[in-house]
Amino acid sequence: MKILVVGGKGAVGQGIVAALKNQHTVLIAGRTSGDVTVDITDVQSIEAMYKAVPELDAVICAAGNVCFKDFNQMTDADLMLGLMNKLMGQVNLVRIGSRYLNEQGSFTLTAGIINHRPIPLGVSAAMVNGAIEGFVRAAALELPRGLRINAVSPTVLTESMPVYADFFLGFAAVSGADVATAYCQSVQEAKTGHIYAVWGQDFPGHT
Amino acid sequence: MKILVVGGKGAVGQGIVAALKNQHTVLIAGRTSGDVTVDITDVQSIEAMYKAVPELDAVICAAGNVCFKDFNQMTDADLMLGLMNKLMGQVNLVRIGSRYLNEQGSFTLTAGIINHRPIPLGVSAAMVNGAIEGFVRAAALELPRGLRINAVSPTVLTESMPVYADFFLGFAAVSGADVATAYCQSVQEAKTGHIYAVWGQDFPGHT
Repeated sequence: MKILVVGGKGAVGQGIVAALKNQHTVLIAGRTSGDVTVDITDVQSIEAMYKAVPELDAVICAAGNVCFKDFNQMTDADLMLGLMNKLMGQVNLVRIGSRYLNEQGSFTLTAGIINHRPIPLGVSAAMVNGAIEGFVRAAALELPRGLRINAVSPTVLTESMPVYADFFLGFAAVSGADVATAYCQSVQEAKTGHIYAVWGQDFPGHT
Repeated sequence: MKILVVGGKGAVGQGIVAALKNQHTVLIAGRTSGDVTVDITDVQSIEAMYKAVPELDAVICAAGNVCFKDFNQMTDADLMLGLMNKLMGQVNLVRIGSRYLNEQGSFTLTAGIINHRPIPLGVSAAMVNGAIEGFVRAAALELPRGLRINAVSPTVLTESMPVYADFFLGFAAVSGADVATAYCQSVQEAKTGHIYAVWGQDFPGHT
């Protein structure tokens, strides 16, 4: 398969690329580097990206920013960052990409544990992750040409704990390799409209 | 208690007002009518509303628009409608209202079944409902002064089936009175960060 990983150089993306590159043609899209560059908040940039890397069988998005901040201090702009970047960025990768991907192709988006197990400062992430799950379940009913869509909901990565441990007190971290397995399953299994949770009861199925 | 019902004249809101008005002081906020008017997409309008009806013990929101449309035909603007209206409208009722409500007060927002049981044309509703659930769970951790927050997730109302039956094929409708019971529970119970689903396994607890 020809697979594009948006955010392929990030903490999650690196594991995905490592897991897929031996069996597939893997391309990386990044904001400033990669095989192709893209600003996921800009629909024209997304359109240009798809034109630059045609005939894709799968698109994985492991990119998207949200603001972590005390809810009582958050501004409208703080909340809009996550909606326009991690949420609408991923939604528009699908909305536009559904015209470009090969038949039977797949989209795999990134949600996250925080809408199910919230953390202080995580209101924006919780909103965005919940929205992505709803989007994936509903868009799966309407995508054309046999296209599929799923999301992976990772918990915090073991590799990220040196930086994020204070935010995820009490959480059991998982390895980037285990998270990558969920993305590989989404690309290679037949499911659509599914949330691959890499935490809790769902997780043993991914190891 | 002094309770404000935003959208108190709508299909869901009417049942809420009927269920609460005998035991509480219930005020209605509407776009063009009610005890106070408010445009939930305008933060200044929300601020003015809270100044006009001070000393609230509870705010219930049963208002908010989303676009129902074929996902493959949806524009950015179609998707932004739901994000700015039903989602950010409700989020800003909380963000701003948390400075105005009485101590131990509560917010009850409206999500909906569609992020769990999606329907064609419902991508925007699914996104927004999922976001509201995530928001409620996370904001509950951070609200000041003992404020609580929950959401009600109704399925389609029996009273709305004459208009919406073709969209909700196979769904079991519930009465506006049963949906209203969930809002009353959110206001009067001690829970916070809870989604009162008025459908599926959760529903028997509401009757």
